[in-house]
Amino acid sequence: MAGVEIERKFLVEELPDDLEWLDERALRQGYLALDGRTEVRVRDDAGSWRLTVKHGGGLRRVEEDIEIDARRGEALWSLTEGRRLEKRRHRMNYRGALLEVDVFEGDLEGLIVAEVEFDDEAVATAFTPPPWFGSEVTDDDAYKNRALAVEGRPA
Amino acid sequence: MAGVEIERKFLVEELPDDLEWLDERALRQGYLALDGRTEVRVRDDAGSWRLTVKHGGGLRRVEEDIEIDARRGEALWSLTEGRRLEKRRHRMNYRGALLEVDVFEGDLEGLIVAEVEFDDEAVATAFTPPPWFGSEVTDDDAYKNRALAVEGRPA
Repeated sequence: MAGVEIERKFLVEELPDDLEWLDERALRQGYLALDGRTEVRVRDDAGSWRLTVKHGGGLRRVEEDIEIDARRGEALWSLTEGRRLEKRRHRMNYRGALLEVDVFEGDLEGLIVAEVEFDDEAVATAFTPPPWFGSEVTDDDAYKNRALAVEGRPA
Repeated sequence: MAGVEIERKFLVEELPDDLEWLDERALRQGYLALDGRTEVRVRDDAGSWRLTVKHGGGLRRVEEDIEIDARRGEALWSLTEGRRLEKRRHRMNYRGALLEVDVFEGDLEGLIVAEVEFDDEAVATAFTPPPWFGSEVTDDDAYKNRALAVEGRPA
């Protein structure tokens, strides 16, 4: 992630059947420890595991992302019960933008969230969502990963 | 760590000058996150760094220890301020037992703790501490690593 990343996030009520996906994969992440501004999480991206220590806020920002093997990944995963996100991520191109649509499973089943990434703000503002996008939740903290994992689906 | 490990722990008021050490090395460890029964720590053992996730208590015990490079180690170390142990570990043989003597530095400067490991309980019980050992603190939780790092030196 070099430079600025602009992202908009939308809820999706129902995915149309006739969409053509670039690809689709299983993703899951769980939180091992949440301690003040430090979070430690483990992530399984289609069989490839990573352990991440992230510290945000204030002057000091640190994010260290460490590749781990699947045996370790599964052992650590067992400690994340009740603080997990499990989803299938679908990707598609739409009018020059890349859409990532996360269809949640497990405790968050029923939730579908679409994200669109942009290189600059003008393009982000001009973006017209496809008709199957629902409410925008870009600025809603309840839809951040950590909040979804810990608090569950917003009411 | 295979099998049972029996350990006794003693305070040392002052180290005699004439002891002969097997070796001596710098050790430091700091806590990145403490969350219920899960702790995440980073450790520098004479330049060799490890990140450890430990979950104890209850039925589920997990300890995963991951080698990391020094660049990562130092970045994570910066997040452990106020929750650190820094010491020089000296080792010596004493009447068939291995003594490890930790001379603390940093916030815990002045504290010296000796540990002796035994293979079986009979030997542990029969052990006669050398005259420079002080009070035994084997069962004192205040001298556990995590407590020392978080609470500081017991009064």
